[in-house]
Amino acid sequence: MIKLKADYVLTLNEKYEIIKNGEVVFDDKIIDVGTDLEYDLKEIYLGKNSVIMPALINTHTHLEFSSNYTHLEYGDFMSWLNSVLEHREDLFHGCKSECYKSAIKEMKKSGICAFGQISSTGNDLKYLKHSPLKVVYFNEIIGSNPAAVDMIYQDFLARIEQSKEVKNDKFKIGLSIHSPYSVHPILMKKVIEIAKSEDLPIQTHFMESKAERKWLENGEGEFKIFFEKHFKNAKPLITPQEFIEQFENTKTTFIHCVHANEKELQKINEIGGYISHCPISNRLLNVGLLNLESVKNFSIPYNVATDGKSSNFSLNLFKEIRAALLMHTDLHPKYLAKDLLKSVTINAAKALNLNNGSLEKDKEADIITFRLPNKVEDEELLPLQIILHTNKIDNLYINGKEVK
Amino acid sequence: MIKLKADYVLTLNEKYEIIKNGEVVFDDKIIDVGTDLEYDLKEIYLGKNSVIMPALINTHTHLEFSSNYTHLEYGDFMSWLNSVLEHREDLFHGCKSECYKSAIKEMKKSGICAFGQISSTGNDLKYLKHSPLKVVYFNEIIGSNPAAVDMIYQDFLARIEQSKEVKNDKFKIGLSIHSPYSVHPILMKKVIEIAKSEDLPIQTHFMESKAERKWLENGEGEFKIFFEKHFKNAKPLITPQEFIEQFENTKTTFIHCVHANEKELQKINEIGGYISHCPISNRLLNVGLLNLESVKNFSIPYNVATDGKSSNFSLNLFKEIRAALLMHTDLHPKYLAKDLLKSVTINAAKALNLNNGSLEKDKEADIITFRLPNKVEDEELLPLQIILHTNKIDNLYINGKEVK
Repeated sequence: MIKLKADYVLTLNEKYEIIKNGEVVFDDKIIDVGTDLEYDLKEIYLGKNSVIMPALINTHTHLEFSSNYTHLEYGDFMSWLNSVLEHREDLFHGCKSECYKSAIKEMKKSGICAFGQISSTGNDLKYLKHSPLKVVYFNEIIGSNPAAVDMIYQDFLARIEQSKEVKNDKFKIGLSIHSPYSVHPILMKKVIEIAKSEDLPIQTHFMESKAERKWLENGEGEFKIFFEKHFKNAKPLITPQEFIEQFENTKTTFIHCVHANEKELQKINEIGGYISHCPISNRLLNVGLLNLESVKNFSIPYNVATDGKSSNFSLNLFKEIRAALLMHTDLHPKYLAKDLLKSVTINAAKALNLNNGSLEKDKEADIITFRLPNKVEDEELLPLQIILHTNKIDNLYINGKEVK
Repeated sequence: MIKLKADYVLTLNEKYEIIKNGEVVFDDKIIDVGTDLEYDLKEIYLGKNSVIMPALINTHTHLEFSSNYTHLEYGDFMSWLNSVLEHREDLFHGCKSECYKSAIKEMKKSGICAFGQISSTGNDLKYLKHSPLKVVYFNEIIGSNPAAVDMIYQDFLARIEQSKEVKNDKFKIGLSIHSPYSVHPILMKKVIEIAKSEDLPIQTHFMESKAERKWLENGEGEFKIFFEKHFKNAKPLITPQEFIEQFENTKTTFIHCVHANEKELQKINEIGGYISHCPISNRLLNVGLLNLESVKNFSIPYNVATDGKSSNFSLNLFKEIRAALLMHTDLHPKYLAKDLLKSVTINAAKALNLNNGSLEKDKEADIITFRLPNKVEDEELLPLQIILHTNKIDNLYINGKEVK
């Protein structure tokens, strides 16, 4: 059992309680949070301007692409997609043990205790099964060619089985349907059935680019050229609305949604979906900025994630939310900052189906500590100051154990 | 004489030439730039994926505020201004020798060779006169109370004289008129006369907030409350248009301009003015985002600057232009990146009246070198990749001498 004390404890509970001179007592779970807690324990005071808060959760990454720095073409979604196809094998091949370790280290230093990994091949499994951070491993399905559906599905099932063999308390499984434009509806249905019967979270990319809408609604635009080049005579196989409806009664996160319209956001809300917002990725592919105000108006819990290094220069989640804070110039920085801390803790935990993300009794003790450069008089400004000044953390506890 | 060779040499000349496997030969001035240059000199090759480019120039800072981290209130311009008034003396008092050194070190590490310092008191002079980086020291005048005009002016003249006593090749003088709302027109005129007769560059804050426009145009809004509280019965003393016109035939940089309208931008263009853009500062005070597209349409050369730590968490200029790159989601990242590198080199040099900012014969040899994490095939993407991946530089040369 450990008792930590800091000048500021951010609980990230429903009331967004911030406790000055607060204490947290935990073993693998959180036992108590408050002030002047009486336990027969030596209290560890973390020093002047210290902060304790829930560890961060990076809901959406593609670590398979972690060897990318300057290979992929930024500035235009379709050019980027083509450059991914061109360099995919090289990049995957270029990311082995050290590359995964370094990606995980970067996340760890920025206070991330858990991440959602999209696995497109299963080759990443051997590098992630002993991850010091919690992994939600999303086996991804992709493929819209009817002739290949069976083969793709068999491979997918085999990958699920492989990932199930990794049994430990830090490794969980999810399923990913790549997107409405790249997966055959027959496959979608099958995958969703598995998710329902085994209660697995789902992730799917949705409305990342304008091109996606043009294609899904009219079978036109840049995706038409793309599909004709690769698959001949392709047609969109599902409407955006039908796509969302399929995920009713699942725990699904819709990634990006930059070009989702109000009707679609409403539907996502109706089926209890989540949204994952990757502002740097969206910017580098020049697809625009998610309308967070709309997302909030539809009461959809959003989380912020780094996406993979295929479309980011960093996996540091504090830097990502700082970017979000700067980019959403229509929102008040003070209140946006509060929201952003929720987005990478409690909201992210819900989307990944994890029992952490807030400092409350019986939650898993996934905790970070760090120090601010100076004191913050006004509690209301604490989230903003944390986001501006924090690049790396001092200590990370996962299930109550310090991870160095 | 030194000869450096790198995989990429960005000249930042008029043609934006990028030279692969390029070389730069210099002593205190740049002697030659090209490939296979023949000089009787040992060539220093900077290694794989190395870059040589002009050192950066941070046109607008307030180092007097460098001790601020969490004191000032962000999120609202007027609340911030009030918090500045409340904490000003403490913050100034809290920034002495070590504080200035650390601010300069941060700039140096990010590749800055020169900065424009707004000096409101003159107390910073002793800390800056031996700066390893070039300083353009803008003595600032502020005060709109007619009764105090003479006293303010005498103090201002004394500060100019003091700063003139600092004679060295890295220290130059400029003048600053705080803003149209805070300086009496009589003082403005006098200061502009000095600038004209001594050929000194000027900086002035302009249209930073909506409140400024409301006040200048109608004598209304939050500034009315502010002035009535501090000075009783104050009235705006100049219109925005008249204000700009005064700077005809000077070398003036208008700082911020977030709320400048098209007519004002046109006038700034007509008088040959510059604009300094401080995106992080503007965001933290929640005043909005400068319309860079308009600025470009009016052909006004803009530079990007960090502003002071009174409204920023960092003085790193690479981080500032990366923020700008992310924030201006309406502009294409590839082309914006090219512009942003210009903004902190050649454009900034022009605004500060310095003979550097590009790698061209006879320019002062203010040069940085660093390495990218990987090669960049497409030259067009080089500026973007540089901005994404560069946080600190390897070497900084000022007037041809390495500054460590």
